[in-house]
Amino acid sequence: MERVFAEYYIETPYDVEHAAAVLAGEQSSGTFVSVPGETEELKQRFAARVEDLQLLDIADNPSIPGNSIPGKKYQRAKVKVSWSIENFGYNLPVLVSTLQGNLYEISQFTGLKLMDLEVPDSFKNHFSGPKFGIKGSKQSCGVGDRPMIGTIIKPSIGMSVSETANLVKSLIEAGIDFIKDDELMGSAANSPFEERVKGIMEIIRDNEQKTGKKVMYAFNISDEIDQMQKHYDTIVTEGGSCAMISVNSVGLAATKKLCDRGELVIHGHRNGWGMMNRHPLLGIEFPAYQKLQRLAGVDQLHVNGIQNKFWESDDSVVTSIKSCLKPMFGNDEICPVVSSGQWGGQAFETYRRTQTTDLLYMAGGGILAHPLGPKAGVTALQQAWKGAVEGLTLEETAAKHEEFAASVKKFKK
Amino acid sequence: MERVFAEYYIETPYDVEHAAAVLAGEQSSGTFVSVPGETEELKQRFAARVEDLQLLDIADNPSIPGNSIPGKKYQRAKVKVSWSIENFGYNLPVLVSTLQGNLYEISQFTGLKLMDLEVPDSFKNHFSGPKFGIKGSKQSCGVGDRPMIGTIIKPSIGMSVSETANLVKSLIEAGIDFIKDDELMGSAANSPFEERVKGIMEIIRDNEQKTGKKVMYAFNISDEIDQMQKHYDTIVTEGGSCAMISVNSVGLAATKKLCDRGELVIHGHRNGWGMMNRHPLLGIEFPAYQKLQRLAGVDQLHVNGIQNKFWESDDSVVTSIKSCLKPMFGNDEICPVVSSGQWGGQAFETYRRTQTTDLLYMAGGGILAHPLGPKAGVTALQQAWKGAVEGLTLEETAAKHEEFAASVKKFKK
Repeated sequence: MERVFAEYYIETPYDVEHAAAVLAGEQSSGTFVSVPGETEELKQRFAARVEDLQLLDIADNPSIPGNSIPGKKYQRAKVKVSWSIENFGYNLPVLVSTLQGNLYEISQFTGLKLMDLEVPDSFKNHFSGPKFGIKGSKQSCGVGDRPMIGTIIKPSIGMSVSETANLVKSLIEAGIDFIKDDELMGSAANSPFEERVKGIMEIIRDNEQKTGKKVMYAFNISDEIDQMQKHYDTIVTEGGSCAMISVNSVGLAATKKLCDRGELVIHGHRNGWGMMNRHPLLGIEFPAYQKLQRLAGVDQLHVNGIQNKFWESDDSVVTSIKSCLKPMFGNDEICPVVSSGQWGGQAFETYRRTQTTDLLYMAGGGILAHPLGPKAGVTALQQAWKGAVEGLTLEETAAKHEEFAASVKKFKK
Repeated sequence: MERVFAEYYIETPYDVEHAAAVLAGEQSSGTFVSVPGETEELKQRFAARVEDLQLLDIADNPSIPGNSIPGKKYQRAKVKVSWSIENFGYNLPVLVSTLQGNLYEISQFTGLKLMDLEVPDSFKNHFSGPKFGIKGSKQSCGVGDRPMIGTIIKPSIGMSVSETANLVKSLIEAGIDFIKDDELMGSAANSPFEERVKGIMEIIRDNEQKTGKKVMYAFNISDEIDQMQKHYDTIVTEGGSCAMISVNSVGLAATKKLCDRGELVIHGHRNGWGMMNRHPLLGIEFPAYQKLQRLAGVDQLHVNGIQNKFWESDDSVVTSIKSCLKPMFGNDEICPVVSSGQWGGQAFETYRRTQTTDLLYMAGGGILAHPLGPKAGVTALQQAWKGAVEGLTLEETAAKHEEFAASVKKFKK
């Protein structure tokens, strides 16, 4: 029988082998005493199995509250556990409950993080996965050998439909590939969803007729499920190509339902992510998280950015970008959405460390607050990426291009 | 315009007022430079507002990674923030993205936890909330002035439908009020969902005909949305009264969709909760969490238990029980599901600290592994609660009742 594998980073004041056995037990038979009916054969077939155990460093203090034992130190380790797929079939929420469920509650651990997971090949027959991914995203908006350049409508909230449409118009004239609603923007009195889609899509269609280029706009459909379906329909009717979902706020089941429709690229916003990831020894790491989102069918997923305005390290961002671009079942790479405080200056380090242009590079203020206007803002980003790919430094690129030079002057800290 | 209020527990090495302003800014206008179109009037109308700020203790070290400033200490504080409901309307996922969203990513904080929230009364016109809650749950299974006594099918996985049905039969004969699938149990080859419901409901209906008592069984419908709908239908067709959803694995949007059907009591399992709550300065506290689940319409919600086998403190469990039993819009108390290592011995402290019998008291091994059999296990739990309510001690209760005395002998540590 095929098995699902999961790798955890753990910390415990107990014997590590004992703690790993508790982990496996909780996530299969799961009670504090043996009960009638729990035969050895049954355990053999359904019990989670500890596959590997690697001791790491020892900490003096517990990373999160748990059982402390006077005089004991806290051993860290990597543990690999597996389950027969018989345990959950092809059921994404039950898979998540198995991989994450009550594990974080176990007092024997003073730290537990899901690092990565592996599902067997048979999953591809049951999960259609991302329909578009990075290839389909780039194709849809006519971008070839460079990153898609994107921006976010700011201010996040408060603009009328016509103000937003005017902004979209100037962004399109500026040469943008991708625009998105802010995740705080749903359907508001000042900007009802349907009107916003109509107002914006008219401009996008006009531009497509004139230039052949269809700019991708990610409308935020995050809502209850019937509303999401209705909003999805509106985008399709108006000829849009993309919908955005705040995947953590909406949840996996509803996200998958919308992804399964397959008519629109799904832009997955991971807001709320910090809660699940910021502590080094609690929660889930991105390589595991993005696989769950891929099983749901998300095409684009936020990864933060190099030298971002948030707390995340560049190393972590690089790992995230790479994990999106690693095939899961073959030819199904998803689009890493690089954003947060980006203005073009980070293109050099981003390219140096990832060696790819298969990404969506988002700049908010970096475009709209460019001293020479939004068009120069978009041009500057393209110049930065061209320079980065050609192996130029930031300074060399700035010396060649006026628009990028103005970005450097305004945004470089 | 009505406003939503949220209370955060924060930690920062910066000036707290500045950090609070960053929080409010990120969750409304949200970019790192001012952009054209962001007028003062617009800010006034849509900006989040810092309502209150209370300084607490000072820590020497940051609780989670963030900006550290050499020589600076880390001030903790409570911050109350509010938003106009114009910002998100009556959209639960966008509300969550606003309350939690990117906040956890902000490097100015070395700790941030959502403690509580308040929504205006108008929400009750848009969210039908829990249809049954604690009152409807007790009424459905004919329990009056004592807690509902429940148990979980164990082993969690691996039993055939007929084995499970036999176990259910003996539990019903033992006098149980409530039984649930384990959260790791979905639809498996050895126990297909539809067959399981049919096999179990036949026994429950039989018993109802004979005795008039309809035992509540929470079938785990957690799955993708179409499957959940189908499974819900099966339970309704077979005359069942309850469905269980792993709310974190399934997500808010799909959970609400199922709750909105209103034909079954929804048992909300919070597995995965530890990830969101275990760190004292990261994530969300139960009083806020249960309100979001109530807006989705969940009727019963896990709260762990006194002297549980997990890491959580008794104080936290007591707060959780009380928050479930506090009306949100009036007469809408939900059912706290007390479980984890419970065997009856904890009834005394649970009652002493909560003064309520409005709860579902779950024991797994405490019933099935009772030395005199499951019937004695259920009886012992009822004896324990009767003793607790009458003001007896554990010892006094054990002296009066043979079954409870046997529990004490086997389970008391």
